[in-house]
Amino acid sequence: MSYALPTTVHRPFVETLTATRESLASQGFGVLTEIDIKATLKLKLDVDIPSQVILGACRPPLAHAALQLEPSAGLLLPCNVVVRALDDATTVVEALDPQVIVSVTHNDALSPVADDVGRLLQAALDTVTHAFADE
Amino acid sequence: MSYALPTTVHRPFVETLTATRESLASQGFGVLTEIDIKATLKLKLDVDIPSQVILGACRPPLAHAALQLEPSAGLLLPCNVVVRALDDATTVVEALDPQVIVSVTHNDALSPVADDVGRLLQAALDTVTHAFADE
Repeated sequence: MSYALPTTVHRPFVETLTATRESLASQGFGVLTEIDIKATLKLKLDVDIPSQVILGACRPPLAHAALQLEPSAGLLLPCNVVVRALDDATTVVEALDPQVIVSVTHNDALSPVADDVGRLLQAALDTVTHAFADE
Repeated sequence: MSYALPTTVHRPFVETLTATRESLASQGFGVLTEIDIKATLKLKLDVDIPSQVILGACRPPLAHAALQLEPSAGLLLPCNVVVRALDDATTVVEALDPQVIVSVTHNDALSPVADDVGRLLQAALDTVTHAFADE
């Protein structure tokens, strides 16, 4: 099983990051955390990597459901969405496949919640893909 | 395989959260993100759950190593440490076992990195446990 729901778009990083934020919001996800990995590694280690941001996406009703079913589910929340540059004109957007939460916890009761989150994340990724395909 | 490195301490939530922050810092972890789950669910859903905070812990050299070995590793970073109240006097502190990152990615090259992170997280948890056991 792959652990990522991926898409690759032929657009620069910053434009793709903006589109990803908008598409997550349109599917009801709040972005609770944001880590600029490139900036963090530059600051802490003085190394240079391509642009990369981790967005911590959360749909509160589904997070609440997961925590009711699995008290330690917070260890696997929020659902990360990574936006990372491949080159100046190409960007990967990928979400953690929420089925990973089911497989890691071995708690099948989480399956319907993971299905819902996965469907909404895939819709958000499709929106990003199609927005750029239409131009 | 369990996915959590857990400890339970007989101390109130706020005191335990402070001790956890300090012990993570003492092992070289920065806390890049922090989500107050209780406050978020109250605000968004008007539901009440026991106090719970997710700390996103990152040790930059190890995060950098993981990203070099597995380009999508950001989907599983930072390493979450959850502090959650069981009752007024008892608090759970648990870290995501970084071996989960190896098993989810099926990338054995990440094993030495996961071993390092796991050892440091366990040391941080032990510090929390022992700090309160000595009182």
